[in-house]
Amino acid sequence: MQEQKERGVDIALVHHPVLGKKGEIIGSAVTNLDLHDIARIARTYGVDEYYIVTPYADQQELVKEILEHWQKGHGSTYNPARKEAFSLVRLAHSLEEVIEGIARKRQLKPMLVTTSAGTQEKCISYTESRKRIDNGEPTLLVFGTAHGLAPEVSAKADYTLPAIAGRTGYNHLPVRSAVAIICDRLLSDENDK
Amino acid sequence: MQEQKERGVDIALVHHPVLGKKGEIIGSAVTNLDLHDIARIARTYGVDEYYIVTPYADQQELVKEILEHWQKGHGSTYNPARKEAFSLVRLAHSLEEVIEGIARKRQLKPMLVTTSAGTQEKCISYTESRKRIDNGEPTLLVFGTAHGLAPEVSAKADYTLPAIAGRTGYNHLPVRSAVAIICDRLLSDENDK
Repeated sequence: MQEQKERGVDIALVHHPVLGKKGEIIGSAVTNLDLHDIARIARTYGVDEYYIVTPYADQQELVKEILEHWQKGHGSTYNPARKEAFSLVRLAHSLEEVIEGIARKRQLKPMLVTTSAGTQEKCISYTESRKRIDNGEPTLLVFGTAHGLAPEVSAKADYTLPAIAGRTGYNHLPVRSAVAIICDRLLSDENDK
Repeated sequence: MQEQKERGVDIALVHHPVLGKKGEIIGSAVTNLDLHDIARIARTYGVDEYYIVTPYADQQELVKEILEHWQKGHGSTYNPARKEAFSLVRLAHSLEEVIEGIARKRQLKPMLVTTSAGTQEKCISYTESRKRIDNGEPTLLVFGTAHGLAPEVSAKADYTLPAIAGRTGYNHLPVRSAVAIICDRLLSDENDK
């Protein structure tokens, strides 16, 4: 078996700037289920940290309350597995703050890898991305809420992953499902299939 | 390219009989998000029908109200993509009813394929299951809510799929995420990776 370097993968879920229904730039509200589901997915696949990105003070307070409940409150004893998942969750005001934090942590700037339900430039295959990650390239996977990441975010990407096509051309997956599928494509154990 | 037969895959999400926190047999409540997310996943991957299995009249009423909103009410015009996803959703009182319905539809009893976060008998790999589906074998993928399918359901399975291991041994994925990952492993377009 080929020896693998330690993999350094983090996830960011962006709530601003993202696209609205008509393609306008908006800030979206944090969804409780996105916190839970993506934390559990991240924990399953060995993701290091899961950043909730929102510039809004009220949304940050909401996230803090949920985290408090599951990390220190009743939830932490009622469901220790959930506490474990929530231990990966971080709050950030902007994607720049996330990148700076990771660069400090890893002493290396991560590759900024965006995801999209549409066609983007700088696209590489899942197989190629997986190889880079296995080779130890620090990677920040960036997901957008609402109707996806604003073009200004995608423009900063080192590369982008292809839209998940399924077989039907229907491209309206929840972001929670996209995170699950993309983590499985990039980070699963090959022996597991 | 090898010619593929039409694939006949349906999904059932079972709310009774499933396991509770202490391993006891329970009936769980229908979760709104499971309806939405799994319908969107099913539509993406070309699943034929998505059955919500619950014997409880009040839960059936709840599902009907949600379906009504998205198929005929305000939701259907507000979000036509969601209407399309919900067009796959069916209600059933029991897994037996689902199997009989599919047998009538396909003139052939489907293979009953269960999923689990634990170790089960009659386990085959994802690769092998994918081959059988590609070869035209009608397949009913069965997922359990709460703490998983009751043993009496798994006992009826023709075969079962391995637990999704990720890389860490943490096995507390939401059922919504498991459906996304398993559909991607079994039904995705290989060119998409």
